[in-house]
Amino acid sequence: MRKNNKKITAAILIIGNEILSGRTRDQNVAFLAGWLNDRLGIKIDEVRIVPDIEKKIISNILILSKNYNYVLTTGGIGPTHDDITAKSISKAFKKKYIFNKEALNILKKYYGNKNFNDPRKKMAKMPEGSRLIYNPSSVAPGFIIKNVICLPGVPLILKSMIHNLQKYLKTGSKIYSLTISVYTVESKIAKILEKIQLKYKKFIEIGSYPFFRLGKIGVSIVLRSENEKKLHYCHNEIVKILKKTKLKFLK
Amino acid sequence: MRKNNKKITAAILIIGNEILSGRTRDQNVAFLAGWLNDRLGIKIDEVRIVPDIEKKIISNILILSKNYNYVLTTGGIGPTHDDITAKSISKAFKKKYIFNKEALNILKKYYGNKNFNDPRKKMAKMPEGSRLIYNPSSVAPGFIIKNVICLPGVPLILKSMIHNLQKYLKTGSKIYSLTISVYTVESKIAKILEKIQLKYKKFIEIGSYPFFRLGKIGVSIVLRSENEKKLHYCHNEIVKILKKTKLKFLK
Repeated sequence: MRKNNKKITAAILIIGNEILSGRTRDQNVAFLAGWLNDRLGIKIDEVRIVPDIEKKIISNILILSKNYNYVLTTGGIGPTHDDITAKSISKAFKKKYIFNKEALNILKKYYGNKNFNDPRKKMAKMPEGSRLIYNPSSVAPGFIIKNVICLPGVPLILKSMIHNLQKYLKTGSKIYSLTISVYTVESKIAKILEKIQLKYKKFIEIGSYPFFRLGKIGVSIVLRSENEKKLHYCHNEIVKILKKTKLKFLK
Repeated sequence: MRKNNKKITAAILIIGNEILSGRTRDQNVAFLAGWLNDRLGIKIDEVRIVPDIEKKIISNILILSKNYNYVLTTGGIGPTHDDITAKSISKAFKKKYIFNKEALNILKKYYGNKNFNDPRKKMAKMPEGSRLIYNPSSVAPGFIIKNVICLPGVPLILKSMIHNLQKYLKTGSKIYSLTISVYTVESKIAKILEKIQLKYKKFIEIGSYPFFRLGKIGVSIVLRSENEKKLHYCHNEIVKILKKTKLKFLK
């Protein structure tokens, strides 16, 4: 992979009443964030979840596409009346909402003339000028227009498409991370961490997260950095200090 | 519960690098959305996930607290250096970031003078004028200032506190929902649903969500409405139409 020490950022816009109502639990943020960072060095800096309301989709697309290198949307590109992502994004960017010929051909070939009904045809409608993201599992493609990438909401389908997205994206610097898990409470190591964070503030981001495992309380200290060497150096320094305190590490 | 046919809306602001990096999967949105709707008739209309960066927390708090009746934040109220929610919200609302006497007493009583160190004391610091949300599991309280409610990120602790939050919140109209699950693909029922959605557009929101279960493909049709009677009426109408198509229902 090309390395260029460049920060490339992205936002995720989850479009879906079912996530906001609590009916469905989002699974795509964790997957996309991990994949984008590890494969392409793209960092998710913001996520928003909005309802299936055209006005809200438009205003959020406009803000996020201005503030980040990429915006990935999930949801709302299926055949039913509540799938309004493609139409809303067309309006946001003042593009015609039209049939994409290639998408139409792909879908027609798959369904056959007889079964290619209007709801299925709708899945070929998108902003004029969109490029397709092929879908090996359920055929209906995603698309990219300007810096906005539209993916389906169903996690299995989204995952199957992600490799066909790679070619459209610039790569940035990967964020490396290391975790130290130790049986203690946060307040006992807070001062140590604060001191180390100050020392490494230019290079490393240190997070502290309590965990409960088999009835025992602990803290995971997560170090994240673009600089792999400094990351290991900082990791070893924390481990050394913690060993002196005689706290037990989680293997 | 008081019923008043009033729409009360809320946003959730998740503060945490660990959610954005994909390391941790959020569990609080689904829980809070369900609980707020079922208990209090409060509807989550937007969710945002932002990093542990003061400037981002401040700007999002200001926008969301203006646009919704309530904002619930999760995360960033612990004892470590990366817990900056209370300080950021103080700045957002131009309030002093000070020790809350009651919180200080609660924590001192719990830890005892000897173990009440600075990181633990920090958990009593919050915007001046905050009211406390008691925490029966790990003692450190959440707080409410203006229309912003600050809760911890750890799901177990958040859940234990939620009943102590109820008294501060106005109640709105509960959203009722019914689901019809049927073995088919979305494109086969899209026209039926579109027609029904048009007919009931004033009262009912119809969502369509594909599912995969035991190797079979299906669609869950979710109806949501403040009007329980109309909801059942619409539900029965859809079931009647679908029965004519001889599709199989998921029991």
